[in-house]
Amino acid sequence: MTRLYACPGSGNCFKPWLALNQLGKPFEMAMVDVLAGEQKSQWFMEINPDCVVPYLVTGSGEGLGESNAMLWHIAEDSFLMPQNSYGRARALQWMFFEQSKLEPFISPARFFTTILPAEKEKRRKNIEGWQTAARPGLDRLETHFAAHQFMLGEAYSVADIALFGYVHVTEEAGISLDDYPSVQRWIGDVSNTPGFRPLSELGLSADRAA
Amino acid sequence: MTRLYACPGSGNCFKPWLALNQLGKPFEMAMVDVLAGEQKSQWFMEINPDCVVPYLVTGSGEGLGESNAMLWHIAEDSFLMPQNSYGRARALQWMFFEQSKLEPFISPARFFTTILPAEKEKRRKNIEGWQTAARPGLDRLETHFAAHQFMLGEAYSVADIALFGYVHVTEEAGISLDDYPSVQRWIGDVSNTPGFRPLSELGLSADRAA
Repeated sequence: MTRLYACPGSGNCFKPWLALNQLGKPFEMAMVDVLAGEQKSQWFMEINPDCVVPYLVTGSGEGLGESNAMLWHIAEDSFLMPQNSYGRARALQWMFFEQSKLEPFISPARFFTTILPAEKEKRRKNIEGWQTAARPGLDRLETHFAAHQFMLGEAYSVADIALFGYVHVTEEAGISLDDYPSVQRWIGDVSNTPGFRPLSELGLSADRAA
Repeated sequence: MTRLYACPGSGNCFKPWLALNQLGKPFEMAMVDVLAGEQKSQWFMEINPDCVVPYLVTGSGEGLGESNAMLWHIAEDSFLMPQNSYGRARALQWMFFEQSKLEPFISPARFFTTILPAEKEKRRKNIEGWQTAARPGLDRLETHFAAHQFMLGEAYSVADIALFGYVHVTEEAGISLDDYPSVQRWIGDVSNTPGFRPLSELGLSADRAA
């Protein structure tokens, strides 16, 4: 069975987890305590020598890193995947945009603002830099969502899950979404798709592998 | 006909250009003078409101940004694309790795070291930061290529082109490849694949659109 190694609260871990849930695919989870450094433990290093989560191991034992690559693999034969080559490339365009213009800034700003706030004061200058750097990407999304319901237009897809991972927790990075009403509308629309489960449920006991 | 908007010397522009060449797909090019700010000109803004190259417009007039997404679209029906879902996801894993662990560091270090060296002294501290940040990604590749001929093993694929774009010009970023013999071996192997053309030929007159 597909096994997903993940930690609670992570926008990157959330992506493959949400797709597996929304597609009703059987999987088991193994939680890795990243705040305690468990990703560098011997047992996990033997599974993923790169020592990062999320990490996916397929039913036939093949390992896969990078949240958006996992998402692609999980969604490839489903309604989440665009049905023509241009649509698939367009989905990837947004997924690469997410990893270069949003995740590198929202993720660390959120980490030191909300996940590990003990270092918030010490990191203030870094945090402000990340918050500023996230704005052009959010501006781009606001323009997009003012004209389109979802990333690829009218159909919810793999690209929405990839973008949603960090964009829906932007305020936990100390960036108000008041200037982004269309982004807020889209967050609500994704949250109302069939089978949606919130990030707060990632890692609850029902998901855990034995 | 497919039209590729590009500028000379860019590792990102090189990726779709090399794939189009190696697959023998008909295309025309339009050069955008980025050093002169032409990507923000009215004529180009009407084509790509995001004002960046590379940018691809398909034969049916559909636009596409992000070098690795273009590469996917160009390669999808070819020998460059893995034939099963896990292989495709594995290719994407490396392509996302490239955009987060290599390109963001090699590209600006190279820009201020080789493309626009006038600012080299002024940017010394930034350049050193990017050079340091590129090392973990290069170390990871060295480990990989010590055990595998290409990114996905024995077969040259879309992932090799994505990684090659910036990795083959690492020394132009002021980072010696002396510590990376397996990466050097791979650069040689990619350069010897059928139909390979070097970055120095991108934008020569034969490619230009009328």
